[in-house]
Amino acid sequence: MVGSVGNGLADLGAGAVSMNGVGKALHPAEAAAAAETLPMELEPPEALVAAAVEAEAEAKREEAANGRREIVMGRNVHTSCFAVKEPDADDEETGEREATMASVLALYRRSLVERTKHHLGYPYNLDFDYGALSQLQHFSINNLGDPFIESNYGVHSRQFEVGVLDWFARLWELEKDEYWGYITNCGTEGNLHGILVGREVFPDGILYASRESHYSVFKAARMYRMDCVKVDTLMSGEIDCADFQRKLLQNRDKPAIINVNIGTTVKGAVDDLDLVIKTLEENGFKDRFYIHCDGALFGLMIPFVKKAPQVTFKKPIGSVSVSGHKFVGCPMPCGVQITRLEHINALSSNVEYLASRDATIMGSRNGHAPIFLWYTLNRKGYRGFQKEVQKCLRNAHYLKDRLKEAGVGAMLNELSSTVVFERPKDEEFVRRWQLACEGNIAHVVVMPSVNIDKLDYFLNELVEKRATWYQDGISQPPCIARDVGVENCLCGLHK
Amino acid sequence: MVGSVGNGLADLGAGAVSMNGVGKALHPAEAAAAAETLPMELEPPEALVAAAVEAEAEAKREEAANGRREIVMGRNVHTSCFAVKEPDADDEETGEREATMASVLALYRRSLVERTKHHLGYPYNLDFDYGALSQLQHFSINNLGDPFIESNYGVHSRQFEVGVLDWFARLWELEKDEYWGYITNCGTEGNLHGILVGREVFPDGILYASRESHYSVFKAARMYRMDCVKVDTLMSGEIDCADFQRKLLQNRDKPAIINVNIGTTVKGAVDDLDLVIKTLEENGFKDRFYIHCDGALFGLMIPFVKKAPQVTFKKPIGSVSVSGHKFVGCPMPCGVQITRLEHINALSSNVEYLASRDATIMGSRNGHAPIFLWYTLNRKGYRGFQKEVQKCLRNAHYLKDRLKEAGVGAMLNELSSTVVFERPKDEEFVRRWQLACEGNIAHVVVMPSVNIDKLDYFLNELVEKRATWYQDGISQPPCIARDVGVENCLCGLHK
Repeated sequence: MVGSVGNGLADLGAGAVSMNGVGKALHPAEAAAAAETLPMELEPPEALVAAAVEAEAEAKREEAANGRREIVMGRNVHTSCFAVKEPDADDEETGEREATMASVLALYRRSLVERTKHHLGYPYNLDFDYGALSQLQHFSINNLGDPFIESNYGVHSRQFEVGVLDWFARLWELEKDEYWGYITNCGTEGNLHGILVGREVFPDGILYASRESHYSVFKAARMYRMDCVKVDTLMSGEIDCADFQRKLLQNRDKPAIINVNIGTTVKGAVDDLDLVIKTLEENGFKDRFYIHCDGALFGLMIPFVKKAPQVTFKKPIGSVSVSGHKFVGCPMPCGVQITRLEHINALSSNVEYLASRDATIMGSRNGHAPIFLWYTLNRKGYRGFQKEVQKCLRNAHYLKDRLKEAGVGAMLNELSSTVVFERPKDEEFVRRWQLACEGNIAHVVVMPSVNIDKLDYFLNELVEKRATWYQDGISQPPCIARDVGVENCLCGLHK
Repeated sequence: MVGSVGNGLADLGAGAVSMNGVGKALHPAEAAAAAETLPMELEPPEALVAAAVEAEAEAKREEAANGRREIVMGRNVHTSCFAVKEPDADDEETGEREATMASVLALYRRSLVERTKHHLGYPYNLDFDYGALSQLQHFSINNLGDPFIESNYGVHSRQFEVGVLDWFARLWELEKDEYWGYITNCGTEGNLHGILVGREVFPDGILYASRESHYSVFKAARMYRMDCVKVDTLMSGEIDCADFQRKLLQNRDKPAIINVNIGTTVKGAVDDLDLVIKTLEENGFKDRFYIHCDGALFGLMIPFVKKAPQVTFKKPIGSVSVSGHKFVGCPMPCGVQITRLEHINALSSNVEYLASRDATIMGSRNGHAPIFLWYTLNRKGYRGFQKEVQKCLRNAHYLKDRLKEAGVGAMLNELSSTVVFERPKDEEFVRRWQLACEGNIAHVVVMPSVNIDKLDYFLNELVEKRATWYQDGISQPPCIARDVGVENCLCGLHK
């Protein structure tokens, strides 16, 4: 019966090729026939994990080879998959299917442990313990539609959701009866929502966003058929308000919808919200603009950074979004979206045309996410987050300093825990540490789950490997002056 | 320290008013002061659940009173919420916060059990056991972007996702190397994606959808700035192809993008896909149309219904979406979207302009959902689903027959397990059984988790209550002839 769970143990054991599942039979009869020709002995778990890692590496090499790593669409490459197969007729008696599935899951779990341990490049806080919530996993919890409009479906968690929204509204200084919001599926949904609200407020508005904005902002422009103007950035990654002014003046007749980054994806740069507002008001856009703040990661950190310019609804902003799986930490992606109730009211004036029961992007919504967030917010509170933010900033400085001491060019923005540095030469090393790269630079995002020990482990490995990469004296570390400025580059020319 | 978790036990005990959390202090100092004035004795759990149910009922009455139940937006009504409060300084020593949170969760769990037991109106299969997957809950599993493009983030579940997608592509007869798809957050995301692909294929296309289509279809039209034409429906809820033809001929010059319902939300009506295609081709739209099939619930049931017209990519359709939390059953909403790879390729030809790394709507995606789906598909297989579909259809017939025997007007479409019947007079009863209502009709969706015992329990209660509602001889059951046809109505006039 081994082999009846597609790409289960036996298939995994056969290595990368059979993991592809290409041409794998799905019909039970075919599966049975295939089982006879497959190697029957099971390789030890280590080999299986190694095979999975190798399959992944192969996919990466292939991608690197076609040179379109950054933007690639329209593919259907089955590099590795656990195919679904029809149960055999006697599965219920033998229990073998259950056992095989359990083995696949146990192996998968093992690889997750390994991958979680070597994780530095993405802004996800992997340090959470939601054991107390596992009792809720077997309920189908769904907050359909609007958090403030009860549905007849009783298995929801709106009471947790609204508690979480209140907490964020208070954080960003919007009165309880003046906000509207909901818990989203991710940061992208927040951006999609904020920009849509902006467009509904100013239907002929032009969307402005810096070049280093998250790609979901440009995706929104295309989805919503909005004119979009890309604004240049400073070396730090912040929006260049001189260029912003130039572009505003080229479009004086149209209102402005602006995406302001509270921490860009690559450099963790915080756009100067006050300067953006000043630029708008001084160039004839007073009362003719809508600002959406994309606070994906840093929206929840900046309130706890001393002397940082604050994101607050006391300033003329329209909406703020933040991810829940980033700084808070959550098993699945989620986010929080807060906007002014008056904007949502404006939408609802045209409700018959909208023909929608609610003002969210999604209909059915994950009811578990609000409970995860509620749990962590209650446990940590403002004070807890403040401590964690301080720790992250401290550790980020440590990493940057140690990198520079070791001769590695690096940059850390003042308000950020994202350390940008020269891209490691070896792709294997990049994958191992799951570093996000762009051109010549890579970054580590120092999250609460990243402590000094983990950074030392990484630093030591980097320094050791780097010595071998450049030992021939011919290869040289890449110049990153164009990305992070001459003062932060330590290449042959600039050191 | 009781009261330090906002609206925790003490607050719940104080009943509906304090559950609102209105004016509740968030600062620890204020919370401490408030704790002194709040009633300290804890009411028994039954009272707490009753209070929660009452608060919900109050909200419903309020909504019913303002008469805008169906479409209401722009509200911020804090009917009930578990506020988040700052921890007290000594919480870590006393452990009281943890204990109070645990109590809130235990009570919440109890209410979920109760609500799950009385659930008939929504098409969610609540019958699942994912205990084997609880070992994965503490990983932050994220399938960022495209399922077929590996990300450097290693904690993903693409190998499960692609296995699930393959299964669905095979179900709908699209070759493994000819499809593209991903696991979505819900049925709405599938519709948003399918319609967006349609618009990209035919940028000046007009969107056609029957009046009884899910509201997300009309939401998409507004989001995407597409012209949208609503088509009439037959009594069954199916699209009226005579009206469709009339409307097509009014817009001969523009390509057509059509949303075809494989089971409407309210009546479970299946649009006649073959007739839709015929209407298009015979009226000059050959090669100038894109069909998206919204298979929310029934997309996964219809392949297993004998003699039902099939949804298949062998017909000229562009995409199919289905929900994962409906027929399959899943703790959180999710869905499956399958489209033709050629359409996604067409998008990618303009990739620089799109400036997106992928062709999904969302960026970060829940990596747990694919594992839940993979688990159930593997366990049940095609045969397992077939059995469950047959059971559901049988039980739906049982319900419809029993309702009619009891003198309650009811309708059941041939290919559906959604039983439409006269709206119960008492809103309390509607809420108790979580029935979705529209005008004079309500419906029960017979899912695998709904057995004969549950139906009998419901039927007996309905018959008993109904006798009291209409005992005075003055009130009469509503006429539902306009909704379901004279032949299915059993009101005073039509019985």
